[in-house]
Amino acid sequence: MHYHKELLVRFAHCDPAGIVFYPRYFEMINGIVEDWFEEGLEISFSGLLHHRQLVTPTVHFDVDFVQPSNMGDRITFRLCVTKIGKSSFDLDIQVSCQGEVRLNIKQTLVFTDPHAKSTVPIPPDIIKRMTLFLAPTE
Amino acid sequence: MHYHKELLVRFAHCDPAGIVFYPRYFEMINGIVEDWFEEGLEISFSGLLHHRQLVTPTVHFDVDFVQPSNMGDRITFRLCVTKIGKSSFDLDIQVSCQGEVRLNIKQTLVFTDPHAKSTVPIPPDIIKRMTLFLAPTE
Amino acid sequence: MHYHKELLVRFAHCDPAGIVFYPRYFEMINGIVEDWFEEGLEISFSGLLHHRQLVTPTVHFDVDFVQPSNMGDRITFRLCVTKIGKSSFDLDIQVSCQGEVRLNIKQTLVFTDPHAKSTVPIPPDIIKRMTLFLAPTE
Amino acid sequence: MHYHKELLVRFAHCDPAGIVFYPRYFEMINGIVEDWFEEGLEISFSGLLHHRQLVTPTVHFDVDFVQPSNMGDRITFRLCVTKIGKSSFDLDIQVSCQGEVRLNIKQTLVFTDPHAKSTVPIPPDIIKRMTLFLAPTE
Repeated sequence: MHYHKELLVRFAHCDPAGIVFYPRYFEMINGIVEDWFEEGLEISFSGLLHHRQLVTPTVHFDVDFVQPSNMGDRITFRLCVTKIGKSSFDLDIQVSCQGEVRLNIKQTLVFTDPHAKSTVPIPPDIIKRMTLFLAPTE
Repeated sequence: MHYHKELLVRFAHCDPAGIVFYPRYFEMINGIVEDWFEEGLEISFSGLLHHRQLVTPTVHFDVDFVQPSNMGDRITFRLCVTKIGKSSFDLDIQVSCQGEVRLNIKQTLVFTDPHAKSTVPIPPDIIKRMTLFLAPTE
Repeated sequence: MHYHKELLVRFAHCDPAGIVFYPRYFEMINGIVEDWFEEGLEISFSGLLHHRQLVTPTVHFDVDFVQPSNMGDRITFRLCVTKIGKSSFDLDIQVSCQGEVRLNIKQTLVFTDPHAKSTVPIPPDIIKRMTLFLAPTE
Repeated sequence: MHYHKELLVRFAHCDPAGIVFYPRYFEMINGIVEDWFEEGLEISFSGLLHHRQLVTPTVHFDVDFVQPSNMGDRITFRLCVTKIGKSSFDLDIQVSCQGEVRLNIKQTLVFTDPHAKSTVPIPPDIIKRMTLFLAPTE
């Protein structure tokens, strides 16, 4: 199962060359992962932080910018999980517009206690939901 | 030769967990590359766009977030060139604080004509300056 | 008639004190005005720029931050037009959460030709649609 | 006495119309106030939050955007204090480029305890420093 979300490329995302400025893509990615947590894993970032004292900082990004995106494009983010570790998990996010690939993203995040500043095991209920989005190994 | 620049981690860079929010790192990276163009390559982004009709979008990022950074940290960006191609070039950027590595970044940028939306060869005068920052091959 | 839109206060909007960082509010306001153009005035920012060569920079803001907003809040933006001039127009935007006012915003925007860098009269078809959102004078 | 700071208008600050996107001005303003705290009031935002448990959210903005700023402009922020209250203080910030006024900003900030979520009196040592930047009443 993949998680899908469409976003409008806004005026605010674009640079003087008229295309998406890359730090804005990273803001979008953060928002997509937040939406997937809320809609896919059924747990909110705010609940995670305030009730479970957990955050999920990113420890690795590998991003290919295949084609630029322009203001007014409606781009689709397709997310799946490629690995579930003890504390960390890997995501594969593809961004496309009308079938044309724009970005390929590999992201590793790790469950962390922000006060102790140490990694913590992924809670079992979250692993269970996450498994629904696990891509079949090739 | 490396290009160095120190930045203060500001209130504006930090998230509710009190550490740098990763899209802000990408804004900093964009600013560091802009500073290196201006101070190291002696050519400004605005001159590049307005007088030469050139932009340098990023086509690849590989980023390791080794340790988080906190508000008030003074972090140092150390940049060198690892490859100069026909239109593209590779950068290696290490971010550290008092000797502790925070991020390791590999970035590929490509000289592009924003109107024709096509890649263009790196101008010879820029190659010449860029070579000063080329890391010795290991 | 008012234009309404609800937004989730995200992790990305909040600062180390855990509340919305004010530059993020201004990004939200820009997005809300863009949405109102598209959904209320039935004209997109990208169409305005690319087909009509028009942009609508802001020339004045008067903002009262009444109460802070927290991560996870679902805040509602309520927009109406308070004045339609020759080239400029005034908006009144109230932001609230479950009936509690968070921000009161008065914003003046002006139709501009980005190439000539001069103001232009608001096109008649846009005035017609804008009038639907005009608040009754008190 | 005024506090002055020059900033380069970067690629990152500009929108598809090639001028500064207004939320970026608010990020600059936040940074200028942070720099003034550190260099003018000799107290850092991070020290204020971590050692004194104080933040200074903004409760009011009145901003006139007089002329747009372009990529490559070097703009100067000139800051003075116009009122020192019990918990709040007013700033007047003028942004100009080579003598041409770009923005006029009136900003009110209030000393706040982020945990108690209540206003607190401005500490006496900060009032003392702040008075150095107080504009003569007209």
